[in-house]
Amino acid sequence: MDIEIVKPADIEKRSFEIISELLGDKKLDPRYEKIIKRAIHTSADFEYAQTLYFSDGVVETLKDALKNGVDIVTDTQMAKAGISKAALGKFGGQVHCFMSDGDVADEAKARGVTRAAVSMEKAASLKNPLIFAIGNAPTALIRLSELYSEGLLSPVGVIGVPVGFVNVVESKELLMETGIPCIVARGRKGGSNIAAAICNALLYDITAL
Amino acid sequence: MDIEIVKPADIEKRSFEIISELLGDKKLDPRYEKIIKRAIHTSADFEYAQTLYFSDGVVETLKDALKNGVDIVTDTQMAKAGISKAALGKFGGQVHCFMSDGDVADEAKARGVTRAAVSMEKAASLKNPLIFAIGNAPTALIRLSELYSEGLLSPVGVIGVPVGFVNVVESKELLMETGIPCIVARGRKGGSNIAAAICNALLYDITAL
Repeated sequence: MDIEIVKPADIEKRSFEIISELLGDKKLDPRYEKIIKRAIHTSADFEYAQTLYFSDGVVETLKDALKNGVDIVTDTQMAKAGISKAALGKFGGQVHCFMSDGDVADEAKARGVTRAAVSMEKAASLKNPLIFAIGNAPTALIRLSELYSEGLLSPVGVIGVPVGFVNVVESKELLMETGIPCIVARGRKGGSNIAAAICNALLYDITAL
Repeated sequence: MDIEIVKPADIEKRSFEIISELLGDKKLDPRYEKIIKRAIHTSADFEYAQTLYFSDGVVETLKDALKNGVDIVTDTQMAKAGISKAALGKFGGQVHCFMSDGDVADEAKARGVTRAAVSMEKAASLKNPLIFAIGNAPTALIRLSELYSEGLLSPVGVIGVPVGFVNVVESKELLMETGIPCIVARGRKGGSNIAAAICNALLYDITAL
């Protein structure tokens, strides 16, 4: 077995070198490069070099908000676990996930909608500026887009990377049409890991400044 | 926008129907079908229909152990967040992740090894039967294989699905050579989401029995 000897502190750096080598001649937009590479790093899936969409100015908008201590709302406990609370907390921000809240479950059941949709409404009640990182539920993105259209929610930006097969592609198209600053994994792919990786790429970038 | 109307309770069922449609003529081994489809469900990546490896009898071995209340050890807080504690708890099992433990961090730093490797040693000290679900760190799989060879750790089975670029492929090959009952995502792909999905596929299968 040919194990490459790499010091623990150098594993991530070496991983990114290999990703760059494997990208070969594929040129990435320098504004988005760190985010795209971190999405590839967490998935080993080079499709993200093709499918990640960035609305104009979104990276600066999100980084400025994070520097000012914006909170992040996510639709899964996995993404919440994956987002660097240490980096976010340096600027005063925290991560919220309302999916396991009893009131959200009760209301979703009573109304016949998803917990993800109700958790977006609960986030809207927070009033303070928020970034949304949606890695699982297209119904979260759909409800979020509706709340925005109704003037009930005005996110700083949305990382829209739900994964799956039922309304996933459609929910992302809906988000991109709203005009909300967004980063989207077009197509069916995405996930909590991708949502967390994109948040962390932004956080590590401003932490390193 | 052409949103398909699906009741919340039916979204997962509809997702699996679409996965089956998209698999088309590709035949999956009935013993592994639910696991493979749940890995695709969490990633929208059909490569898992080709790359997942199952050692002989591993599915029955893991299901029997879970029914008997075995604990799961994982190498990320994300996988811990994603594994169904409700389903696991029904049988008396719980999930451990030692990655954020202070003693693990201190020892890793002192010895110049990864926290993932030290967290495998901490798991070995538990002595009770364990399933390992490794979704991130190849160094966890490598250390686990070493501990097994040294007779210091005897896992019931290992879900070996780290993701990435440094020693990931090699660590999986090493695991498959040990003879430990295992499910492995061959190649670079995998992740905490895949590790959790495989655990949950096994748990949902025995819960539904």
